[in-house]
Amino acid sequence: MSRYIGIDLGGTAIKHGVVDQKGTVLTSGSTRTPDRGREGILSCMAEIARRYMDLYPILGIGVGTAGAVDFARGRVLGHSPNIPGWGDTPVRELLLERLDLPVAVDNDANCMALAEMHAGAGRGCRSAFFLTLGTGIGSAVVVDGRLLRGAHSLGGEWGHSTIVHNGRMCACGRRGHLEAYASAPALVRRTLELARQGLPSVYAELSDAAAGALDSEEVFKAAAAGDAAAAQALTETASYLADGIASAVNLLDPERIVLGGGMAVAGSPFVGAVVEEVRTRVHSAVTPYVDLVTAELGNRAGFIGAALLLLDSMAGTAG
Amino acid sequence: MSRYIGIDLGGTAIKHGVVDQKGTVLTSGSTRTPDRGREGILSCMAEIARRYMDLYPILGIGVGTAGAVDFARGRVLGHSPNIPGWGDTPVRELLLERLDLPVAVDNDANCMALAEMHAGAGRGCRSAFFLTLGTGIGSAVVVDGRLLRGAHSLGGEWGHSTIVHNGRMCACGRRGHLEAYASAPALVRRTLELARQGLPSVYAELSDAAAGALDSEEVFKAAAAGDAAAAQALTETASYLADGIASAVNLLDPERIVLGGGMAVAGSPFVGAVVEEVRTRVHSAVTPYVDLVTAELGNRAGFIGAALLLLDSMAGTAG
Repeated sequence: MSRYIGIDLGGTAIKHGVVDQKGTVLTSGSTRTPDRGREGILSCMAEIARRYMDLYPILGIGVGTAGAVDFARGRVLGHSPNIPGWGDTPVRELLLERLDLPVAVDNDANCMALAEMHAGAGRGCRSAFFLTLGTGIGSAVVVDGRLLRGAHSLGGEWGHSTIVHNGRMCACGRRGHLEAYASAPALVRRTLELARQGLPSVYAELSDAAAGALDSEEVFKAAAAGDAAAAQALTETASYLADGIASAVNLLDPERIVLGGGMAVAGSPFVGAVVEEVRTRVHSAVTPYVDLVTAELGNRAGFIGAALLLLDSMAGTAG
Repeated sequence: MSRYIGIDLGGTAIKHGVVDQKGTVLTSGSTRTPDRGREGILSCMAEIARRYMDLYPILGIGVGTAGAVDFARGRVLGHSPNIPGWGDTPVRELLLERLDLPVAVDNDANCMALAEMHAGAGRGCRSAFFLTLGTGIGSAVVVDGRLLRGAHSLGGEWGHSTIVHNGRMCACGRRGHLEAYASAPALVRRTLELARQGLPSVYAELSDAAAGALDSEEVFKAAAAGDAAAAQALTETASYLADGIASAVNLLDPERIVLGGGMAVAGSPFVGAVVEEVRTRVHSAVTPYVDLVTAELGNRAGFIGAALLLLDSMAGTAG
């Protein structure tokens, strides 16, 4: 049996485990993300890996991380606001020095997609479109069983697709992007805006401090309890999201669409509304084929997919 | 040498020719599209093919046509407003009966992309994104040297991506699509609108009949001659188009972007404006890689690509 170590680097925790070639988790754990910059993180990863290497014969190590990654070179690009000192790091090179094992590195959305394709909601599909809804909106595309990374490893940035020409400012500094309308912070902002505009809401008289602490989970609960501002914000968010999904589906015609992240909970009215809206917004020939499901592996998808990167990199990459 | 017949079915003309496996045209011609429905068109195609089969040893026949095509089954789907009686036709089956040669059928945007990849602006690329700007906006995606047709042969419909949430009505009956903002008819409509709103323009006092006859080529000429309404409409169109292209590029990260169709003329200020706007609208990491060019094969791309369908279908398809 082939065994791989998967490491999922997040701003607060490193999730990790040993995974076989089918995506089955043999053992797993979680470690606080060290705050000592690049060296601290790499040492922590190497330590985690050595512990697993004592227990199992390991064929390689995969690392998933937020932000843009040059998969071919195993390098994290640019900045990483949530993980100080991590941007522009040749992760593969530096881990190889420490561990002498094959290393693959990719962004978290691609890892999630790989995990779900092998062992979750994408099982059995040859093509799929993945969206993760959280603080940001991540995405990944699988075509012919392989991740579409693009010519410069920069593809899959669907959160920064335009759905409103010259619209709201996005965190990336450009305008009208899906992420500016359908991410968790966008949902919270819109709920507060509607409450202040007079829609009946528990959030109408919220202090600035309380407003700043509000998260999307609470908005979901409030909507379920009948809060008009929360419900209206969720309806709008579903509609924006559906526009974004429909455009990608019109282009890619994937076998399946998989929604992940905290806002995508199986069976929730929100996901139901998104599905309905996507059906009315895609090209009519595609409507009968819309197969939208929620992710199955939750926050384990990151390290499972990271481990599977090594299988995927051996098989080559679409680009 | 392998030789294929390519047939490009349009509303007014059938363009056709014999093409080798490199996309070189050995001979070509054009025939008026018969107005006798499905049977008339199929008989005409068979006649064209037989004439070429007398001249060359032919390995197969490719047909390009407007609208949605089920490539796997060689079948034109749905309706075909510009070619009465052509919708929902099993083209491959019916041509096979007449000619006893391998037949492949695909939509015109995919044919254009194949032709440009082999013998035009996409030569040497492994991945590319194609847009054709005309009465409608067609698109095609090449990944890893192969057309991305999608799981149900329905991909590549980027003209129907949303760039303005709940925006202008599109010809397809849905709202806010790129085609409703950046196609040739949209450009003409917007020019007339701006002229009527008071922008200095030769079109300010146009009769309804003259307005109905206005085409995008004249708008381009008027803009070049200093017409304010035409110039403003072109600027807006470039900006909408750039939004649509940037979103696709963020998702696909293609090696090259190829603009075709009547509105894409190499070296024109319009294409220059589109390139500049795409650079400012894509994800910033992608900006240095934006390589946008105009198509090279003009209206021969349709039949050349149709002929090359047979090569492509032998190599398999990404989906």
